[in-house]
Amino acid sequence: MNIIDIINKKRLGVKLTEKEIKFAITGYLNQEIEDYQMSSLLMAITLNGMDLEETIFLTKAMVESGEENDLSSLGNVIDKHSTGGVSDNVTLILGPIVASLGVRFAKMSGRGLGHTGGTIDKLEAIPGFKTELHMDEFLSQVKEIGIAITSQTGDIVPADKKIYALRDVTGTVESIPLIASSIMSKKIASGASKIVIDVKVGNGALMKNVDGARELAQTMIEIGKYYDRKVVCVLTNMDEPSGQAIGNALEVQESMDTLQGKGPEDLNELVIKLAAIILGLDQNINAMDAVNMVKESIASGRAYQKFQEFVKKQGGDLEKMKIASKVISVKTTKTGFITHINTLRLGELARNLGAGRIHKDDDINPTVGFVITKKVGDYVTENEELLKVYLDDKDIVISDLLDCFEIGNSLGEKQNLIIDIID
Amino acid sequence: MNIIDIINKKRLGVKLTEKEIKFAITGYLNQEIEDYQMSSLLMAITLNGMDLEETIFLTKAMVESGEENDLSSLGNVIDKHSTGGVSDNVTLILGPIVASLGVRFAKMSGRGLGHTGGTIDKLEAIPGFKTELHMDEFLSQVKEIGIAITSQTGDIVPADKKIYALRDVTGTVESIPLIASSIMSKKIASGASKIVIDVKVGNGALMKNVDGARELAQTMIEIGKYYDRKVVCVLTNMDEPSGQAIGNALEVQESMDTLQGKGPEDLNELVIKLAAIILGLDQNINAMDAVNMVKESIASGRAYQKFQEFVKKQGGDLEKMKIASKVISVKTTKTGFITHINTLRLGELARNLGAGRIHKDDDINPTVGFVITKKVGDYVTENEELLKVYLDDKDIVISDLLDCFEIGNSLGEKQNLIIDIID
Repeated sequence: MNIIDIINKKRLGVKLTEKEIKFAITGYLNQEIEDYQMSSLLMAITLNGMDLEETIFLTKAMVESGEENDLSSLGNVIDKHSTGGVSDNVTLILGPIVASLGVRFAKMSGRGLGHTGGTIDKLEAIPGFKTELHMDEFLSQVKEIGIAITSQTGDIVPADKKIYALRDVTGTVESIPLIASSIMSKKIASGASKIVIDVKVGNGALMKNVDGARELAQTMIEIGKYYDRKVVCVLTNMDEPSGQAIGNALEVQESMDTLQGKGPEDLNELVIKLAAIILGLDQNINAMDAVNMVKESIASGRAYQKFQEFVKKQGGDLEKMKIASKVISVKTTKTGFITHINTLRLGELARNLGAGRIHKDDDINPTVGFVITKKVGDYVTENEELLKVYLDDKDIVISDLLDCFEIGNSLGEKQNLIIDIID
Repeated sequence: MNIIDIINKKRLGVKLTEKEIKFAITGYLNQEIEDYQMSSLLMAITLNGMDLEETIFLTKAMVESGEENDLSSLGNVIDKHSTGGVSDNVTLILGPIVASLGVRFAKMSGRGLGHTGGTIDKLEAIPGFKTELHMDEFLSQVKEIGIAITSQTGDIVPADKKIYALRDVTGTVESIPLIASSIMSKKIASGASKIVIDVKVGNGALMKNVDGARELAQTMIEIGKYYDRKVVCVLTNMDEPSGQAIGNALEVQESMDTLQGKGPEDLNELVIKLAAIILGLDQNINAMDAVNMVKESIASGRAYQKFQEFVKKQGGDLEKMKIASKVISVKTTKTGFITHINTLRLGELARNLGAGRIHKDDDINPTVGFVITKKVGDYVTENEELLKVYLDDKDIVISDLLDCFEIGNSLGEKQNLIIDIID
């Protein structure tokens, strides 16, 4: 077996065997296959596709490239994943809500590369918060209080790390089999029995349109079936940021507000829906009951108490969390309806302020970021505030921010935040 | 402009601009673009294609990556190229024939990599033959005796060298725009005004079928038009080796035999046809007259005299050329018609004997090789000779050779050696 024959086969549109896929992934990780051969194979896969069986074999080869967590001592465990978006603090809100309702929420999360930080970076905005738990600490915390979030432990799917870095610089990101196997291999190896995936759709997201997002969802659900894991996908609109905050401490603050029922409307709606889905998955209750239970947990303060318990358990001190004291109010020079917000660009501008990383070893400044005051569909008049900038040691060009907001005469069609739920 | 955007564009099937193509080729040569990015782009081109304009831009970027020869002082100059095949000694026969009839035949040739040697390797089987001429020696020899063959002088199309080496190991060889631009960039930069290209078709060739070969021919002719160079393509069958000899000195000997009218029938027919085409191109005479002039040059001995003059001029001594003295006659164990000869495999076996290179710095043993006694369509009985092996210090497994000959009960359809002429 040799890699050139495998590349040629996929180039000609012939289905690869399990052995060939395993050979390619293992050989690449062992440095027997060169970067330039893997990138050529990845482009052939991106253009000629892979059927479900090949995609499962690819996922399997990736999972087997590293360690697998054993969470079986916890019984039913729920994991939640997002395909990635700007200012995505849903996990921080969702976890405490469902844990307050008896769900075991065990999440291993990565740091963010590009625009704003990942969940781990957001938690590190809380002084003292310990994001690296040993496996036994992680398991006993989930048993004790129902929720734990830690950075990736052990050597989970090393093949994905190497392949993802290559895809990023070779134009091979936008491939459903490659995206599905990348996400699912990490979820499978992480060990949860039930997985809720928030598939972002829109301009700033990996999936630009709903059809592609549906296909991705279906593929991930089928991979889950092969591994006997229940997967539910929620397609959500990413044509504008969800919530208002972009930046790590600002997003923690927004999570706390939302847990107390005082968050932005769209984020509140998304979180209630996702929490109800998770509850339904875990406890076999109907959708209406689940929504009511979630609302009651928020209204009664139990959800927020669970958040405080979780933060304290991992050593965090919320009193000490800082937000930059220098604030600029950015005001529009136009009058009209906001028709579009360039989410990805806002994320990049936040990153430039220090909220995210450009290189993987960069330090993050947790105190900086934006709070968006107006959203798509809002009517604004000249001199009205669009957003607040929280800044520290780096400057920002106001016109770059204004350029992120498109303002027009008529209100276009506004897409719902939740587009579809697929399971 | 950045390479990831260019790759993504071609991945999505969008036409590239001249600037983008130039950026990719120049950047790759300057090591600003990585191997893994170029291989990904090459795979996207292989699968999504390039239209004629893009292919011309690609050829242009390749030509401009290095030096260009100026042969204008010679007036009309004819170059001949082959897309590559096992035991292709046509240039050695064709050059002297047309030079004996007043054509200026100026050829820069490469060494062979894979199966048997290139034209330069074959000439080096003649002791003393000097294959590296300075540009002024080259030009004055063409003026004086009408023929010179030298290894590539100067830095002709360095981008092609680098890209070809990458295509070879990334499954991106079989692409018409990539093949056409690779061949034509070298022909354009080499400087001839009229170019005859022998496009090999068949199992052992780059082009497996006639339709693909026609498309390749048409593309090369159009690139020629853009550069104001006349290109004629001759599609020839490579389902069996042309002639009988495989191996460097053996092929020189076969060339000498053919120049004296004593060569194998198929090779003789091919050479007369190609020589007549070149004569027609050069001297504006009709096909019938051209064929008669070629036949007369061979019959009168003028063609062979020109060969002797050419070899002597470049320092070669034909008397000293050696062929391996150890000869094995390989005999069939079957009775029936030869239906197929695995040309590529025979080439590989000759290479293993020392007739070709595996690595680019390997030495070639010019004395070894095969002479095939029976060809496709011949009827053989058990114990009849199929080929002779000339060997020196390396052994060969006889059954491997026998496996190259398929012998069956009925005579299949035999394809003509010359399939078509396109101009």
